[in-house]
Amino acid sequence: MAKHPQASICTLEGLDDFKDVAIFQDYHGLPEFRNAVANFMAKVRGNRVKFDPDRIVMSGGATGAHETVAFCLADPGDAFLVPIPYYPGFDRDLRWRTGVQLLPVHSDSSNNFKITMNAMEEAYAKAAAENIRVKGILITNPSNPLGTILDRATLVDLVAFVNSKHIHLVCDEIYAATVFTQPDFVSVAEVIDEVECNRDLIHIVYSLSKDLGLPGFRVGIVYSYNDAVMRCARKMSSFGLVSTQTQRLVAGLLSDDEFVGRYIFESAERLATRHERFTSGLEQVGIGCLESNSGLFLWMDLHKMLKEQSFESEMELWRVVVNEVKLNVSPGQSFHCAEPGWFRVCFANMDDEVVEIALRRIRTFVAKADLAAKKRRCWQNKLNKLSFKSRIFDDVAMSPRSPMPHSPMLRAQN
Amino acid sequence: MAKHPQASICTLEGLDDFKDVAIFQDYHGLPEFRNAVANFMAKVRGNRVKFDPDRIVMSGGATGAHETVAFCLADPGDAFLVPIPYYPGFDRDLRWRTGVQLLPVHSDSSNNFKITMNAMEEAYAKAAAENIRVKGILITNPSNPLGTILDRATLVDLVAFVNSKHIHLVCDEIYAATVFTQPDFVSVAEVIDEVECNRDLIHIVYSLSKDLGLPGFRVGIVYSYNDAVMRCARKMSSFGLVSTQTQRLVAGLLSDDEFVGRYIFESAERLATRHERFTSGLEQVGIGCLESNSGLFLWMDLHKMLKEQSFESEMELWRVVVNEVKLNVSPGQSFHCAEPGWFRVCFANMDDEVVEIALRRIRTFVAKADLAAKKRRCWQNKLNKLSFKSRIFDDVAMSPRSPMPHSPMLRAQN
Repeated sequence: MAKHPQASICTLEGLDDFKDVAIFQDYHGLPEFRNAVANFMAKVRGNRVKFDPDRIVMSGGATGAHETVAFCLADPGDAFLVPIPYYPGFDRDLRWRTGVQLLPVHSDSSNNFKITMNAMEEAYAKAAAENIRVKGILITNPSNPLGTILDRATLVDLVAFVNSKHIHLVCDEIYAATVFTQPDFVSVAEVIDEVECNRDLIHIVYSLSKDLGLPGFRVGIVYSYNDAVMRCARKMSSFGLVSTQTQRLVAGLLSDDEFVGRYIFESAERLATRHERFTSGLEQVGIGCLESNSGLFLWMDLHKMLKEQSFESEMELWRVVVNEVKLNVSPGQSFHCAEPGWFRVCFANMDDEVVEIALRRIRTFVAKADLAAKKRRCWQNKLNKLSFKSRIFDDVAMSPRSPMPHSPMLRAQN
Repeated sequence: MAKHPQASICTLEGLDDFKDVAIFQDYHGLPEFRNAVANFMAKVRGNRVKFDPDRIVMSGGATGAHETVAFCLADPGDAFLVPIPYYPGFDRDLRWRTGVQLLPVHSDSSNNFKITMNAMEEAYAKAAAENIRVKGILITNPSNPLGTILDRATLVDLVAFVNSKHIHLVCDEIYAATVFTQPDFVSVAEVIDEVECNRDLIHIVYSLSKDLGLPGFRVGIVYSYNDAVMRCARKMSSFGLVSTQTQRLVAGLLSDDEFVGRYIFESAERLATRHERFTSGLEQVGIGCLESNSGLFLWMDLHKMLKEQSFESEMELWRVVVNEVKLNVSPGQSFHCAEPGWFRVCFANMDDEVVEIALRRIRTFVAKADLAAKKRRCWQNKLNKLSFKSRIFDDVAMSPRSPMPHSPMLRAQN
């Protein structure tokens, strides 16, 4: 900002354009904004692929982008297949006002939660048996909550799958710039350049909330290779356009190539360092995480700490972690995870000091839990009574389904 | 901007707050933004009424606000009664994704297009006869396209009407600050302070696009007196939140009482001057307009210039005005007007020089039309041939239903 005062319409240097920008109403968006976003999307994907600025459609964050795509592709009652575990906000963003359904596609820890075409075929067949019309597959790549990326082979399989069924593939790539170690991120945009496919079936949801850390600016993008979807989405964008003031600022911000290059590099460096610190800290106390190289979170395995392998026990443990250990993590069941004991831990949104506090609390907790496990073997009853007391307290304060601030919507206090 | 550099997060003075504002995700909105908007809404209404900042719900412009209210109040198939003529964007904004219907409430020039309770009862009874569930009334006050305001008695009647039927009253007051001569604007917010009524039935849609001339900033507001609607609308606002960068700027802008007072005064002065210039210019060539004291447009009566009193003739005249006279006006039928020959003319969005050019063109056109009328009496055939030629040309360039840039959505080029 200090270096480019003209990028803002609120500085003396940019003020001359205030009026033009403030009254700009075209829902195509400012050309410089669309150009800058298209370039940034390419840069984040290693410039191995180009994006057409005329296909950049604005929406109110990824939240609005997902709803827009659902409105465009599906009628009420239609369904999308979504590999679990998935971002819980989808249940509201995609379903609430559109009436579409989300059908889970199984995955579990046996193959590190990888998407398999077997599971996809199963989910598709199950929907068909129930007379549910499947309109597409929704994937997040990199995955929220896993922090993993899809390999090229899986993407090729997914593209082939949607082609064979003539359904759509919606790729949420809002964490594309958070890939912090090898292997490199592979976008569906690259894959469809390499394999034969019907591009009309491919749609990307993007946003600057995660990759640039600007969630307040509400920059959501629908990038569809399908002209009809693009035109429809653009008309719908009237319900959630990006403020022209923000379009202008983002255009300026992203047009500084040197800054953007440095930002992407520096952000990945910092995420890698933080990720390493957190996973090794957990490892020291015997806690494992799914191997990952992207995202702002870890997929932490606490299944050995469950009293029994059930979601009730997971919820019990989650309450202890939140209320007693005082760490804000999300239980796997809120992501529709198929097996209990997994928790999502955000490691990026705090400073180094808080990381150390968090790790210290975990160490203390694990030590206590080890002690308690020993005691439990002696006095099972005593522990039952304690957890009963804690449940009464927690039921007032917490709802089991929306425990975490996943999205602004889920954080409603009223 | 120059006086308050700290109001922006992009100036050296405001840059310290960049991070906090950019990452702010709470969909309640920045407290200073809600306070400022609530105060501004009160000020625009002469401070005769207060607004609670905790009831200010954000949405993507008035477009998003209207859709949100419709989603909150109605199920697909349900209907709102809307007095004609009304803003054509409603047909898309309210109906497209919600599945609700808009049922016209008759009004015509015999009483200067005033809303009557007879017409309201008739429309309500007609809906009942057709088994359509009416969920509310939607009014725009000041009216777009009429440029008139509702008198207190009509508002009292409307509030009584919705109470007696237990349906909702949605008041679009996005032109509240454009009232430029007496009588003063009366908001539904004042009326419900004065009469006995169920406040749960009352909802206001507001925006800064017209009253502050900031359509690019996408600041839409839902202000509902109904707690359940407010909570639901707030959750839905996730699909169209206002950029925090813009919230911050608007908060700063509206917190300068002296500026706001001067702005409201100066804007009304300028609108009054322009309105006077335009109406008197039209009067000189024998063109009348509906008497009005608000809005950014006139409701111009050209029914005497129609070849016959039909909407086909109106469309024919409109094509001549757009393509030959080269004036961008909107035909009454696009506002569902019940009688042909009325046109909406925006008088605010041009400079003084353009006004004179527009008036000159109208004068030339009227003189020509007078001459043509004389000739027509002699050579009816000749004129028919001419207008046929013109029709062929225009059909390619124009669509009859969405001729004007009413809303960003209606301006889609693709």
